Amino acid sequence: MSSQSNAFSTQPYKGTRDFYPVESFKNEVSGLHSKAKQSYIFDTFRKVLIQWGFQEYSTSLIEHTELFREKSGDELADRALYHFVDKGERNIALRPELTPSLARIISDQFGNLKFPLRWFSIDNCFRYERPQKGRLREFWQVEVDVVGLEAGGIEGEIMALVCEMFKAFGAKAASYTIKYNHRKLLDEWIETNGWSEQKQALYGILDDWFKLSDEQQKAQLSAILPLGVVAKIIDTVNQEGEGWQEYQTLAKNYPELTIVQNLLAQQYPDVQTIFTPAIIRGQAYYTGLIFECFDMNSNNPRSLFGGGRFDNLLELFGKHSPAIGFAPGEVPFGEFLENWGLYPDFTTRKKAGIMLESQESLVNAYHDLIPKLKAQDYIIELDYQYDRSENKRYESLKKRGCDLIGKI
Amino acid sequence: MSSQSNAFSTQPYKGTRDFYPVESFKNEVSGLHSKAKQSYIFDTFRKVLIQWGFQEYSTSLIEHTELFREKSGDELADRALYHFVDKGERNIALRPELTPSLARIISDQFGNLKFPLRWFSIDNCFRYERPQKGRLREFWQVEVDVVGLEAGGIEGEIMALVCEMFKAFGAKAASYTIKYNHRKLLDEWIETNGWSEQKQALYGILDDWFKLSDEQQKAQLSAILPLGVVAKIIDTVNQEGEGWQEYQTLAKNYPELTIVQNLLAQQYPDVQTIFTPAIIRGQAYYTGLIFECFDMNSNNPRSLFGGGRFDNLLELFGKHSPAIGFAPGEVPFGEFLENWGLYPDFTTRKKAGIMLESQESLVNAYHDLIPKLKAQDYIIELDYQYDRSENKRYESLKKRGCDLIGKI
Repeated sequence: MSSQSNAFSTQPYKGTRDFYPVESFKNEVSGLHSKAKQSYIFDTFRKVLIQWGFQEYSTSLIEHTELFREKSGDELADRALYHFVDKGERNIALRPELTPSLARIISDQFGNLKFPLRWFSIDNCFRYERPQKGRLREFWQVEVDVVGLEAGGIEGEIMALVCEMFKAFGAKAASYTIKYNHRKLLDEWIETNGWSEQKQALYGILDDWFKLSDEQQKAQLSAILPLGVVAKIIDTVNQEGEGWQEYQTLAKNYPELTIVQNLLAQQYPDVQTIFTPAIIRGQAYYTGLIFECFDMNSNNPRSLFGGGRFDNLLELFGKHSPAIGFAPGEVPFGEFLENWGLYPDFTTRKKAGIMLESQESLVNAYHDLIPKLKAQDYIIELDYQYDRSENKRYESLKKRGCDLIGKI
Repeated sequence: MSSQSNAFSTQPYKGTRDFYPVESFKNEVSGLHSKAKQSYIFDTFRKVLIQWGFQEYSTSLIEHTELFREKSGDELADRALYHFVDKGERNIALRPELTPSLARIISDQFGNLKFPLRWFSIDNCFRYERPQKGRLREFWQVEVDVVGLEAGGIEGEIMALVCEMFKAFGAKAASYTIKYNHRKLLDEWIETNGWSEQKQALYGILDDWFKLSDEQQKAQLSAILPLGVVAKIIDTVNQEGEGWQEYQTLAKNYPELTIVQNLLAQQYPDVQTIFTPAIIRGQAYYTGLIFECFDMNSNNPRSLFGGGRFDNLLELFGKHSPAIGFAPGEVPFGEFLENWGLYPDFTTRKKAGIMLESQESLVNAYHDLIPKLKAQDYIIELDYQYDRSENKRYESLKKRGCDLIGKI
């Protein structure tokens, strides 16, 4: 589905997708995106979130450009941001993520809101990137946040919610891993050991850790720290030796980690969870627990989504409230469901096909038959091909998924 | 909620809206947009459409600019269209309506599809307009189309579907009117009477008909046609005299009008339907039945949505298929529901609040209490305010809508 920019192209804009009702196709067409699958992802997330007391909000795709420039302060603003000038000379942008808009609307109504807020949003974002597998220009995210609770039990609730979400999709515990860490603990560990000068470089290496070979890990660490320290860091990440003992001792300063550990061990004993210093979650703004979920499929063992605590959410607007959240994207999550065969059969609803004998039969059908079928929860499809043979009409309705076919 | 373009403004971009979970507010805040109300509109439309055998699709907000320039060919393209150049020098636009994208994706898969298609989409559009009541820069539309059926019974089905939609929202028959007409009949009437030269001017007057006073109607018609003809046209629109007889006789050439009449009379006898030459539906592309639904609320008696047959849907892509459809917008439809008090109470779901005694209680709560409450379909809200008195915590959970409150 390559993109063309010539007029009257039937292709979607590069990096965007058309979502089709796949039931409308004569045969399977490869590379098509299914609207039913996308809706299934959103509906399932929505169901679990509502069950857990979360409430939905949404904001416009267009925001003032400043909202993203000031927040990220990095190359994203200029390289990947869709930003324009509107006809009123306003600098506007298509949101590249959902969190800044959340911060904006909470700040706007700060004094009127009953904290803590358990809020979620399911919306699309745009980034100008070279389209590749799993990375598109238009993508949807499920933004889930609790705003107004300091570190504590809520960390446990968030991790439980993540497990419940996987469960709601029918994902077996063996299909994913949750790796977690703590930003303040990590900083304390770095400081205690006197590596503060190497902090940014160390962050970079730990952030890439699971993508690096053993040799690469060693070589990159050796470039910034003495050999003895390199061994200790490798031990710690591998949960071995004195380094790991030290990390665990320091972790006791952050009781929310104990809650997370106990809750996961008791409630989700089969879920593979790994507490490790090698989870960083790139962005600078995390301030506590951080976690990342990985697809364990051996063909595609990659990060699905992650999140954590970011108590500086409202900083840009001169307000303060603790916050914790995460944001699964529909592209990687959809691939996860595909990999593990977790999509349900979307054609299971009962469907009745009604062959109309003539134009006049429609009025009769509405009088009696249609209300009866509706009462029995049938999806109804009317067939107007008066001129075709009954056999052909029957076959055509059959192909369209009708399990009950009648004539009137 | 006026817009500001200075940095760090908490306001949404001009003409767009933030949709809040109104349950999160301490008190009612005037002018807030409710996400629950918006979702209710979409969910209710979706439910009826699925019941009637329609399938959902969706397309990207960004399209190549040509798609809209070539189609409309009018001032919309340059005045109201959000169009930009992307970083790869492509001319892109934010869709101002959903139909062109529908035509594009059907054309792209034309040979693979099982016609007729009963398809719908619920998506947002952007138009650069001066924001005013009922007209915003970002708005959602429910695009409903049947593609692949010639004029006939489907016209009746579409009108029945419109009535069913109103019914699904609990709208009384007295709250709305459906006015309908037929483009080819109208043209035949104009031609038969020898008014072809005045056709465009006559279209304009009939399109504005219900907004004009009796004097204005007469004055505008008199400016283009002789007085005798003026009287005949006024009679016809008022369903009186020989003019009206003639219009009804000509209507017999379009049997789908008889189907519509019979079906509405039998199945929806209370719904006010008016067959009148004074329904035009502005855009040039209609080719058969046209209709428009009006809110009958005396405070706001305006058009809600409309539609009709447009057999030239795929013309731009060099393909042909008959089509009929309509597209309710959430802004006017939301005002209709508000006017008639048709929104349900969104706080009716059972909600359980659990006061946790300490951080450790969370693990216990998950062990037993939470699964039990979930099994009873309770929405669950955990309260971590360990330091506050039980009374205060109870009151706070009560305010948050919990009808069952427990401690663990």
